[in-house]
Formats: sequence, structure tokens, C-alpha cells
Amino acid sequence: MLPTIDWVDNEVVMVDQRKLPTREVYVRCKTATEVARAIKTMVIRGAPAIGVAAAMGIALEMRRSKATGTKQFTTEFQKACELLAGTRPTAVNLFWAIDRMRRVFSDTAHAGASVGELQARLAVEARAIHDEDVASCRAMGAHGATVVPNPARILTHCNAGALATAGYGTALGVIRGAVDAGIPVTVLADETRPFLQGARLTAWELVKDGIDTTVITDNMAGALMRQGLINFVVVGADRIAANGDVANKIGTYTVAILAREHGIPFYVAAPLSTIDLATADGAQIPIEERPIREVTHVGTTQVTPDGASIRNPAFDVTPHGLVSGIITERGIARAPYQASLRAFFAAPDAAPRP
Amino acid sequence: MLPTIDWVDNEVVMVDQRKLPTREVYVRCKTATEVARAIKTMVIRGAPAIGVAAAMGIALEMRRSKATGTKQFTTEFQKACELLAGTRPTAVNLFWAIDRMRRVFSDTAHAGASVGELQARLAVEARAIHDEDVASCRAMGAHGATVVPNPARILTHCNAGALATAGYGTALGVIRGAVDAGIPVTVLADETRPFLQGARLTAWELVKDGIDTTVITDNMAGALMRQGLINFVVVGADRIAANGDVANKIGTYTVAILAREHGIPFYVAAPLSTIDLATADGAQIPIEERPIREVTHVGTTQVTPDGASIRNPAFDVTPHGLVSGIITERGIARAPYQASLRAFFAAPDAAPRP
Repeated sequence: MLPTIDWVDNEVVMVDQRKLPTREVYVRCKTATEVARAIKTMVIRGAPAIGVAAAMGIALEMRRSKATGTKQFTTEFQKACELLAGTRPTAVNLFWAIDRMRRVFSDTAHAGASVGELQARLAVEARAIHDEDVASCRAMGAHGATVVPNPARILTHCNAGALATAGYGTALGVIRGAVDAGIPVTVLADETRPFLQGARLTAWELVKDGIDTTVITDNMAGALMRQGLINFVVVGADRIAANGDVANKIGTYTVAILAREHGIPFYVAAPLSTIDLATADGAQIPIEERPIREVTHVGTTQVTPDGASIRNPAFDVTPHGLVSGIITERGIARAPYQASLRAFFAAPDAAPRP
Repeated sequence: MLPTIDWVDNEVVMVDQRKLPTREVYVRCKTATEVARAIKTMVIRGAPAIGVAAAMGIALEMRRSKATGTKQFTTEFQKACELLAGTRPTAVNLFWAIDRMRRVFSDTAHAGASVGELQARLAVEARAIHDEDVASCRAMGAHGATVVPNPARILTHCNAGALATAGYGTALGVIRGAVDAGIPVTVLADETRPFLQGARLTAWELVKDGIDTTVITDNMAGALMRQGLINFVVVGADRIAANGDVANKIGTYTVAILAREHGIPFYVAAPLSTIDLATADGAQIPIEERPIREVTHVGTTQVTPDGASIRNPAFDVTPHGLVSGIITERGIARAPYQASLRAFFAAPDAAPRP
């Protein structure tokens, strides 16, 4: 299992994803502020992973609290939650995880728990969010494998892998599930400018797992589809609206259009924590615009001239009509998504909702 | 006028396009071998520009010949032509320019010319190819301006600018033509991985000309089209087949599909020297696969892990059905291209054909 994030000796430890694939460096966070900075600067990224990081950051911060009474402790807790909620706007797993920590806090506090009991309960919950995420990914892998062609020539965009989750991955979980099911799989990984998660992270993970992986620039996928070199597309998601519209890494929308143009199935893999029933459609999803330096420079190399304007929207929205299916830990949702997604939440053992 | 390529004091001088936009360095070539290396390593690139470079390289080499008789001189000439023809396979302007030099050589030799006369005639022809290219670009600009919307929000891919030609540009010539015609123009430039011609060259040229230019990563164009931020697309070409299929920088095909999906006109700007009536359709066009280092590294930064495979096709083919029109120096060709392209060559003052 790849070491995306863990809680060790009162520190949250993460592999620094900005340094991969050439260096495997670990960042150790002692406070919620340090975790928030790690999320904001993309030491850790990926919707499920930042949910886990936020929960651990809150639990970590509360563990070191010097509060002697629950009132002071509650104030500090609210502050930690707000700090983490302010890091990144698009991925809903962040808010889902924070809300889950809030609900646990509130329930435990109402039952008359002490500061020590609250601290312990928050730590347990953060760990549970971590472990459930791994289990969800493995379930997505098993469900997803049922729709992967044999043999499979799979395109994926960005990194929806072990590094984007607590482990195993969502889209890469489906790829791993297909491999585990004995399907011969080759993967084409879009490099995914500007942050190059595909080149740096997806390829790194898959090569480590011995899965045949070829990196291409984002603008090659169309030509390769036209040549018949791709027969399945699977990507992750940062937020899925109630109608099935999918916010995911910039470029996903283009991949979805290309897939439809070439008659290739386009699947999204995401846990229920990524599905935001409170958001009616994709137009309501806030899209983060990130620092322009991600576009203007690669490493220390400046690639744009001074004086040019730059855009850097980190995500786009793929309308549900382009989505063949949404692979979750509870099965594969099909259109109409309004009903199929809601049904997963209604089922008795569904993931808890805020 | 930007200094793409010139012949000064028995040297062919080119701005080193690999160093832009942060450094303006000039490469001086004294031999055909040096020109060939410059083309191969992309000191100079862009279909019309490499045609000019090849012609100048041949004329330069022959100018320094020590041959005393036409037989030896002819052998050396053939060798120089073959050397230049072996540099890059896709752009047909290269072969067009070499064939033009060959025809001039043959005609002049048949007329009983001396070595000195042949040398002079080749130099004149290379200079003529250069000057005609600039004139063609300006004519394309004027024709193209008639189909640019007002106001215009133009997407372009790669660099089909002054730097890709002897000056003014093909696609960027159309943009300059629109600006000259008084149309308010803003430009979105795809950065164009892996070689980043859009970020490094197109943005550099347009910013120098005071044209409002925004660089985006290649995977952003789709999302911006969906938001209504683009109302015209114009790109260059490396080879256009007789049926109107267009080989151009990798990613052009994807841009064309996105344009059609969003109801945006998609134009190609190219001189007649880019149109290859001897090639029936796009499937017959050889597509160059370039060194993988262009994908694996940006500057000195390695962006892919060791062990991953890499693809680097430098071009793709856009089928004619996606092309709204082909802007040439003789006017705008429309479907069916088989007839409209051929008609341009049949016209009395058409550019000479091999």
C-alpha cells in the first residue's frame, strides 16, 4: 500500500506529492495549520485524500489542545474546522469529512463527554474516515472491473489513485480491480497539465504496481482514440452534483467529449462522499482558480513570456449526458443519475451523510 | 518584422526557438549540415519556415562549393538536397522547397549555366521562397480577416506565426489581419505540449505586437468553449492532403472536435506550398514520432517516472469534415476541398508546383 497519508506519533505524515516522481519526501504535520497548508499547496491532493487529511488535521489539532473545559475546546474545534474548510473549494469530500467530524463532536459533546473523551472520539473518527476510504476504493475496484473490456486499453486523466485517496484509488482502483480480475490491462495516462498529476503520480503508482503504463500529453488522447488505441476511459471526481454532472480535473470534459465522439465508454469512479446531493447541477459547483505559476513554470523553467495573461481553472464540469456510469462503493449508478445516485444514499448501509 | 530566418554574409541566421521566450539567441549556420541540424533539433520549426530554411541551406552549401565543373557541382547539390530532405517527415513545405530548388537547378543547368551562374540562381531562388512566403502570409491575413467574427475571441494551437514562417504568420497572420482590419481581438493560446510552442512562441509574438493574449494549458480549451469564451479557431498546417485532411501539431484534431461540439468555426491557414495534391488523404501522411525527452522533461525537470513508456507523435490528422475553411494566399477554400484546393493550383498565377 502506498503511503499517501498516515497518523504516526501525533503527527500526520504525507508523501510530498509535489516532489514525485523523482523524490520520495515525507512531510510531517504537527498542527491543523500545517495540514491546511499542505492541502493548499498540494503536498496532498485528490478529493478523498484531502477529506482524510482534513479529518486528521482537526483530530490532531484537538489532541494538542490545552483547553481545560469543553466550552474552550468547542471554540478551538470550530476554529480548526473553519481553517481546514478554507483550503480548497471544489472537492466536496473536504466538507463532507469536516461535517462528519462536526457531527461526531456534537453527538459526543451532547452526551456529556469530557475533553479527553472528545479528543479520543475525534481521533477514532479520523482514522475511520481513512480506513473506510480504502475499503470504498477496493469496492469500487471490484464493481468497476465488471465493466472494463477484455483486453483493456484504458485512458485515465489526472491522478485518481492511491495517492488521491487513503489507498488503492478510485479510477486507478478500477484499473487495479481489472488487473486483479485477470484482465490484461494497458494504461494511457494523460500527463495532466499544469500540475502533471498524470505524468508524475499516476505513472509512478502504476509503474510501481507493474502495470504497463504509457504517458501522453493531454492533447494526444484524441488522435490515439481515432487510431483505436483506447477502449475504456475512467477518471475520478472532485464533486458530483445530484443530477450526475461531474466536476473533475481540468481537461476531463474534453476527454468525455472525445470518448463519446469515438464510441468509447466514459466512466467516473468516486465514493459516495464525493456525491453532493445538495448541489443540483454542475453549474452550482465552485471552480477553483489556482496560482498562475503552475502554468507559467515547470520546475524552474519559465515557459510563458512576461506580459501574457494566464488562466488556471483547476477543474471543469462534465455534463452527466457524457457519463456512461458512476462507479461507487455501492455499485454503478446509471442515468438518470438523479434517481440512481439518491438510491445509493437511501439504502440501509449507505455511507453516513451530513 | 520578427527575425525568424535571414541570410546574412554567407550565413543563415535564425532565432533559436528552443530558447524563447526567456532568451533571444541567434544561431548562425555556415553549411547545409548545420541548417539540417537546426531543423532537426527545432532551432527553427513551422512548416513554411523549414521550407525556407531548407532552400537557404541548399543555396548556402552550394555557394561554398569548391567544384570546378558542373558534374561535381551537381553531385554535391543532390547530396545537399537529400540531407535537408531527411530532417523531418511531416511538413510538406520542406519537400516542396527542395523540389523547387531542384527544378531551378535542373532548368538552369540544362540552359548550359556555369557553376557560378548556378550558385547565383540558387541563392536568388532561396531568397524568392523567403519573400514569397511573407507575401503569402499577408494575403492569408487579408483573406482570413473576412471570416473573423467582430469582436473576436480566437483560440489558436501551437505556433503558426511569424516564427513558423518567413514572417507575419499563417494562423497568426489571420489574427494580425483581423487586428489590421480593426476587429477587436483577444487570443487564447494553447500552450501546446510537449514543445510548448503556444506558450513560448505564440504568446511571445503576440505580446510583442500588443495583442491581448492569454495562455492556457491544452486541456482548458474545451471548458472555456463551453463557457462561451471562444468564438473562432484558427490553426496552421504541416501538410494538407488533396481531400482537405489536415496534418498539424498534435492536439489540433481534439481542438477541431471541440470546436464542432460547440458550434465554433474551425479554420486552417496555410500557403499553397502546404497543400500536397499528391497525397490523397490524411491516412497517407507520415507522422513524425519525436524524441521522448520532449515529454519526459521540461527544461531540466523530469516529469515522468523511470519505467513509464512514452508516446510523442508530433502531429495528428484532422479530417476535412471538421474544417470550416482553408485560408490560403489565393482565397478561402471550402468543402468539397478536392475541387476547391485543386482550383487554386489551376488558376493562372498560382504558386509553382513541383
